[in-house]
Amino acid sequence: MTRVAVMGSGNWGTAFAAILADAGSDVLMWARRAEVADAVNAGRNEAYLPELALPPAVRATTDPVEALEGSDVVVLVVPSQTLRANLAGWGAAIPPGAPVVSLMKGVELGTTMRMSEVVTEAAGVEPDRVVVVSGPNLAPEIALRQPAGGVIACRDMATAERVAQVCAAPYFRPYTDTDVVGAEVCGATKNVVALASGMAEGMGFGDNTKATIITRGLAETTRLGLALGAHPQTFMGLAGVGDLIATCMSPLSRNHSFGVRLGRGLTVEQATAEMRQTTEGVKSCESILTLAGQHGVDMPICEQVVAVIRDGHPARDIGPRLMSRDLKAEKR
Amino acid sequence: MTRVAVMGSGNWGTAFAAILADAGSDVLMWARRAEVADAVNAGRNEAYLPELALPPAVRATTDPVEALEGSDVVVLVVPSQTLRANLAGWGAAIPPGAPVVSLMKGVELGTTMRMSEVVTEAAGVEPDRVVVVSGPNLAPEIALRQPAGGVIACRDMATAERVAQVCAAPYFRPYTDTDVVGAEVCGATKNVVALASGMAEGMGFGDNTKATIITRGLAETTRLGLALGAHPQTFMGLAGVGDLIATCMSPLSRNHSFGVRLGRGLTVEQATAEMRQTTEGVKSCESILTLAGQHGVDMPICEQVVAVIRDGHPARDIGPRLMSRDLKAEKR
Repeated sequence: MTRVAVMGSGNWGTAFAAILADAGSDVLMWARRAEVADAVNAGRNEAYLPELALPPAVRATTDPVEALEGSDVVVLVVPSQTLRANLAGWGAAIPPGAPVVSLMKGVELGTTMRMSEVVTEAAGVEPDRVVVVSGPNLAPEIALRQPAGGVIACRDMATAERVAQVCAAPYFRPYTDTDVVGAEVCGATKNVVALASGMAEGMGFGDNTKATIITRGLAETTRLGLALGAHPQTFMGLAGVGDLIATCMSPLSRNHSFGVRLGRGLTVEQATAEMRQTTEGVKSCESILTLAGQHGVDMPICEQVVAVIRDGHPARDIGPRLMSRDLKAEKR
Repeated sequence: MTRVAVMGSGNWGTAFAAILADAGSDVLMWARRAEVADAVNAGRNEAYLPELALPPAVRATTDPVEALEGSDVVVLVVPSQTLRANLAGWGAAIPPGAPVVSLMKGVELGTTMRMSEVVTEAAGVEPDRVVVVSGPNLAPEIALRQPAGGVIACRDMATAERVAQVCAAPYFRPYTDTDVVGAEVCGATKNVVALASGMAEGMGFGDNTKATIITRGLAETTRLGLALGAHPQTFMGLAGVGDLIATCMSPLSRNHSFGVRLGRGLTVEQATAEMRQTTEGVKSCESILTLAGQHGVDMPICEQVVAVIRDGHPARDIGPRLMSRDLKAEKR
């Protein structure tokens, strides 16, 4: 029996724990707060994903070292900007040789490092055993065990295949891949594009506008990814297009919902006050734009989102700015 | 002043006529039925797009030759499977040298020809002046003048640029391109993917499932396009991902709505009876699958849609068949 440690107990960590258990593993989750661990052990994470009846194979503890000890696979799912501090606390207890799976989507402020880079630097995990999982995986729908696919990316294909076997549930179809950089760039920037798409929706625009934003957002995501060494085809896959669609179109996406609030005229502070969990795009948009700048990549949508989030420009100014650029060829 | 003939008066033809007029051209539409022409001349196409107040520069006639004579640009927007018969009637009146713009999305039954190929074969229009327009352009949202982008594809870039100028309205942003094959393959297959996505929605599934179907649908669309000589990047663009998102996610899409009805358990006949206009994917799914077969391309989603549409298999059987395929790498 495979034993998996899931380090984090938010809604995606909880849903992924259920996938792992439904695929046949024993799961021990680490929750920072005792009431969350207790709720998980009682069969339901009331605070974060109350709609999910957890399988008995999912258990929780507040002791990170207990969660990690003896695990065959380690899953990391904490807010991006807290990863380094978390690893400083318990990274040394990650078992040598175990695949370390990142479900996190963001770019570290200050260092502009991707999450896999932080894992390697802060916990000494060799890049060949760092795995990234990404795709159209809204936690509340996974909780209902609705069919979805996801990408399992690792530089070492054999490790990707091993992790794919561990998370192949009847309703979750993993596709293996080796492009860690591409999967992570997609995961981070989709949150920024979802903020823009949400703003458009909040202003009353429909699916043409949102589809146009997503497509041009994909174009700028791809430009950034290629500059960082990603494979172009990744952006057309589940971690790219697939996750963009789910995150940018669904009311279940926090980044989308945050954008909707901005589009309706709320300030960043007002929108933040209404959200319960971290909105990754709000945290990461600036570090992504910095990273793009370091590599000379043009990201007009990301730039406009930063103008709203960091500089307090009104969301309604974004549309005219993007639509009035010079006409151009689609491919550059 | 540019004079444009719009040959067809359904909802997309009507919305595109408004784009052209808002971009500064005089538009003469051809409508088969006198009541439609009269309604357009009274300022509103009540039968097909009642929400759109037409600009005065849009006029209509029931005489196709009158519409075509003296036009600088010709736009073709009739149901795909009627194009050849229409061109037999009035194709000879297309002015020599005028760009001929296809807004049609389908593959001809029997010949498996794309619409641009039918235009060239049946009306003798040189390939260098056949232009394809495609993108996330749901007519009812264009009617509200909501922001959207589209691809203007022509083998001859100068002709694409000329047509882009003619349709650059404040709310419509054209991007030029030379990949006619790619734009047409995207346009035809997205309707089939939208049927599948609609079926999933009709069965109660959410955005993860739909995003997964769209992404894997994009993968099979790309495989077909590459086999026909398309450029891979087209599939990541507005004609590819962009149009797929709008068509597969929106209740305003006829193909999506048709699929929803099938997903709820209606038969093809019952669903057809509830639709007012042609549902292109229902007509074209079989010719697309034939085309794929001719080129040895695997299209599992298209295959399942044909099993439902042509062979009467229940929509609920699609999911298990697609989810139980062997695990594989995302890139092939």
